Amino acid sequence: MTVRAPRPDTHRVVALCGGVGGAKLALGLARVLGEDLTVIVNTGDDFEHLGLMISPDIDTVLYTLSGLADKERGWGRADESWEFMRALGPLGGETWFQLGDRDLALHVLRTQQLRSGRSLTDVVGDIARRLGIAATILPMSDDPIRTMVETDEGTLPFQRYFVERRCGPAVRAIRFDGALEAAMSAAVRAALAAPDLRAIVVCPSNPFLSVDPILAVPDLRRLVEASQAPVVAVSPIIGGKAVKGPTAKIMAELDVPTTSRAIADHYRGLLDALVIDETDAAERDLPGVSTKVAPTLMQSDADRERLAGTVLAFADEIAAIGSRS
Amino acid sequence: MTVRAPRPDTHRVVALCGGVGGAKLALGLARVLGEDLTVIVNTGDDFEHLGLMISPDIDTVLYTLSGLADKERGWGRADESWEFMRALGPLGGETWFQLGDRDLALHVLRTQQLRSGRSLTDVVGDIARRLGIAATILPMSDDPIRTMVETDEGTLPFQRYFVERRCGPAVRAIRFDGALEAAMSAAVRAALAAPDLRAIVVCPSNPFLSVDPILAVPDLRRLVEASQAPVVAVSPIIGGKAVKGPTAKIMAELDVPTTSRAIADHYRGLLDALVIDETDAAERDLPGVSTKVAPTLMQSDADRERLAGTVLAFADEIAAIGSRS
Repeated sequence: MTVRAPRPDTHRVVALCGGVGGAKLALGLARVLGEDLTVIVNTGDDFEHLGLMISPDIDTVLYTLSGLADKERGWGRADESWEFMRALGPLGGETWFQLGDRDLALHVLRTQQLRSGRSLTDVVGDIARRLGIAATILPMSDDPIRTMVETDEGTLPFQRYFVERRCGPAVRAIRFDGALEAAMSAAVRAALAAPDLRAIVVCPSNPFLSVDPILAVPDLRRLVEASQAPVVAVSPIIGGKAVKGPTAKIMAELDVPTTSRAIADHYRGLLDALVIDETDAAERDLPGVSTKVAPTLMQSDADRERLAGTVLAFADEIAAIGSRS
Repeated sequence: MTVRAPRPDTHRVVALCGGVGGAKLALGLARVLGEDLTVIVNTGDDFEHLGLMISPDIDTVLYTLSGLADKERGWGRADESWEFMRALGPLGGETWFQLGDRDLALHVLRTQQLRSGRSLTDVVGDIARRLGIAATILPMSDDPIRTMVETDEGTLPFQRYFVERRCGPAVRAIRFDGALEAAMSAAVRAALAAPDLRAIVVCPSNPFLSVDPILAVPDLRRLVEASQAPVVAVSPIIGGKAVKGPTAKIMAELDVPTTSRAIADHYRGLLDALVIDETDAAERDLPGVSTKVAPTLMQSDADRERLAGTVLAFADEIAAIGSRS
């Protein structure tokens, strides 16, 4: 947030989101905001597998917001079956990446539509509508940006690191191949540049693996920083640990303390505010950002809605202070 | 068969085969001959669907010879599930062509391998080996030849006619788009031109829809006619009816009598011999071909093996007469 002027009629909210952790807050926001929400989703994890175009984070957001997600497993669809995978092995297909029978429908359709020349933005928008999702789901870019993990065992494409190697190798650095050549889509630009934005929310996804690739889209970070709307993140760290996934392990390997302070440092210049967990209330005085202490663990849909409400109220509060100053 | 010379050391057999009916005899031949069998399969029915390369007749042969076929349904794999199809509809995918979850593994793998530049011959050979099939399965060509059905409701690609329209429209003519531009593969040429061929068997597939496309591959019919091996067909007609599928309906629409005599006429110049069913014993005197009357209905694997044995013995008999003459 840079400009401090009266902002009547703000209603739209943009969320930047990766996979599982971020999608939980995106669901909370979607329940509160309905069609006033736009979610810009990381596509750095996307890859071609078995000739199919897979977009893991987009699919997690699609399945989560449509109620189709498997809540136990954390990815894919509920009530999934695995006959395709069982048949694939004996035919010589690669089986390190699991594709459920129902989930396959999305991959096959998307691949067909992308190969026919449609943009990922267009394809995802169509699927979201068919799944009854009121929010707008946008890939961060229609161009390939690929998260590459430099490890002590060499450079690995994200899914090889994350799924095949189960985040085993120690991370030395993370880069986003193709980011410099990628273009921001018109839809992402319009969403971020909207003059009537109520807030930009950075979901509690892994900052290094899920949010940084979004911020690597040319001009995207500048648009967020230049927005008149307050930029509020939810820290993915609770009590020195990440709720799920490799965030804490990666932070340790990158010599970053596993604290909300480190999250604030990482996002320095981008955020107006950070929501941190009650457990970490002692860290509430952070340089350069306003903080709000709140329960951030999302176990139920009620938790997700409540945290979404907290984030939005905090953003409105900051906007009000801004417009008074 | 044209040359009548002593033919010692003949052992390899080539079968020309379409889908279900033909695959039954191919299975019988495979059980008798093992790796001495080469099956040249119709690819006129192949099509791209949902971005996947589907080869229905090749798959029927692969599944039948590997014991994976669903014997009740007549196509696809046994113990199949349909979760992919159930998920596809709500996402807006076309559902007129059923793809089982296990079957999908074959389509996805083949599509990936074809897109990576491998030939269909190579891909099918690899899958056949992985499925433990001793026989050699060859697509009739690596180039696209597409069976188009000219009907009273316009021209339909084969699968639209056969699956979507359930053979409803009346057939006026059948053509094979791309046949003139297609090349015979080296593997098909080598199989048909082998000097030590024991027999060429035309399986009891639909002559118009399943065998004619094979014969439309440039030079293929000439190679069959020029072979030193006896060419023996099994009539797909039993008592004025086809065992399964639209053969009889199509023959009627094309003003061809539904008789084994008409089959012999259709294949005139190609065959040395025709095996006809006991029910049609009265038709045994056919011009231009030797006939053998035998039970041709294949309900069990024992039936399939027995008919294969009959066909091979008949071919050997004809070869012996030929080499004496």
